Amino acid sequence: MTISIIGIGLIGGSMSLALKEKGFADRVIGIDANPVHCKKALELGLVDEIKELKEAVLASDLVILATPINAAEALLPVVLDLCDKQVVMDVGSTKKTICESVANHTHRGRFVATHPMWGTEYSGPEAAVKGAFEDKAAVICSKEDSDADAVALVEQVYDLLGMHLVYMNAEAHDVHVAYVSHISHITSFALANTVLEKEREEDAIFELASGGFESTVRLAKSNPAMWVPIFMQNRDNVLDVLNEHIAQLRKFKACLEKENYDYLKELIENANGIKRILK
Amino acid sequence: MTISIIGIGLIGGSMSLALKEKGFADRVIGIDANPVHCKKALELGLVDEIKELKEAVLASDLVILATPINAAEALLPVVLDLCDKQVVMDVGSTKKTICESVANHTHRGRFVATHPMWGTEYSGPEAAVKGAFEDKAAVICSKEDSDADAVALVEQVYDLLGMHLVYMNAEAHDVHVAYVSHISHITSFALANTVLEKEREEDAIFELASGGFESTVRLAKSNPAMWVPIFMQNRDNVLDVLNEHIAQLRKFKACLEKENYDYLKELIENANGIKRILK
Repeated sequence: MTISIIGIGLIGGSMSLALKEKGFADRVIGIDANPVHCKKALELGLVDEIKELKEAVLASDLVILATPINAAEALLPVVLDLCDKQVVMDVGSTKKTICESVANHTHRGRFVATHPMWGTEYSGPEAAVKGAFEDKAAVICSKEDSDADAVALVEQVYDLLGMHLVYMNAEAHDVHVAYVSHISHITSFALANTVLEKEREEDAIFELASGGFESTVRLAKSNPAMWVPIFMQNRDNVLDVLNEHIAQLRKFKACLEKENYDYLKELIENANGIKRILK
Repeated sequence: MTISIIGIGLIGGSMSLALKEKGFADRVIGIDANPVHCKKALELGLVDEIKELKEAVLASDLVILATPINAAEALLPVVLDLCDKQVVMDVGSTKKTICESVANHTHRGRFVATHPMWGTEYSGPEAAVKGAFEDKAAVICSKEDSDADAVALVEQVYDLLGMHLVYMNAEAHDVHVAYVSHISHITSFALANTVLEKEREEDAIFELASGGFESTVRLAKSNPAMWVPIFMQNRDNVLDVLNEHIAQLRKFKACLEKENYDYLKELIENANGIKRILK
């Protein structure tokens, strides 16, 4: 099978590695607006060749849109215009806007809206790794809007990647990811800024940073080119969760201000309930 | 050398394992208010025997106070009363209060105030692990208040654990840890509560939780018996940092509310500066 990957970075590159390794992809064509990424992707063996969009799509059985979500949304109608039997899947972190953008497209059925729940704080072709995606969830949204054969092919892809599938509509997806992904990124960015603000006064502080700090702040390395469009598109849900999160932080603040340590203990015990979810 | 460890949990237990393995501790005596912990510590080979506090201290060359910090502060004068040549070290997450509490003690010189910058979100004897502490920083506070031989022994202990030493006064320590440890815990607790609040409405949400979420929320599993006293004792510093953190989060909120995505990008780029600190 010939696969085109538009956007050869962390996700596109890691998918290519896995699908080549499994023998599912005989040939991977890379498309990327950044010539440095194209060169690097070839060097790293993430893709077999680089082509222009049109030529690549016409030569492919499967097209994977793996650019930042604003670019994916702009490219999807263009790709679908070129499609006949090809299957097109995206891998973006929001789903409502992109689904709406092609709702009335003649070839809507060829598109499958997906979101593999894996990533790291790194980006670009050099961030691509083997063994990505394994044992994580992949979401397929609004599968009833896609042709059955297109859904089946995408299901096969995620199965090969070792992912388990979750089905939901695009709106529910966007609410859920605001809670389990987007707010974690905002918290990390804000925590980094909090601590960097202090760094100006005192360099020695970071000598003490250990695992706990690294764990809560590592997402703050994430790329703005990817995240600004996510926050734009999922603005309402992210604002809801952010307001709730600030309200929760203000409870901790009030406990300290009023020296109400019984309530502080209750808040922490409640937070310990996360053990039910995180193994 | 005979070592007494008061509080045989994550830190005390992991220290015992390392100091036995290195041959530094010939005999480790455990003291713990919780009989279940005593039994478990013996079973796991963390300690060789369990004794009462007085008997243990009198039989020891080194006493390691590894209880939650409120208990450590209450026990330290009692232990120092019993001391003659023994060296006593604590391992607590705040340093100002405990140092002040024995400032005028006759045997103050036998006490070395320390904080090894290692931990996990787990607690109790079963949380003890081999290879803990390695390559992390250990802080020794106000060493000028301790006898030279006591400091030398504690330096040897941390050297054996593979830690590098940082020296500072207790007040500076407490400011720094508010930034690199305590705020991360509050953020994690609050994030867990934010998401658990939502969980009531929708169970499926957690099927989507992946590495980023786990990373920012794992500290929320931490034990309130340990953390409430830390927040009590470091209240002023933690409040300062928490106020700054809420202010930083409000900047993200304002960007989204006003749809000011240029400023949002700036905030994220600034947060990316954490790469200078986290490798």
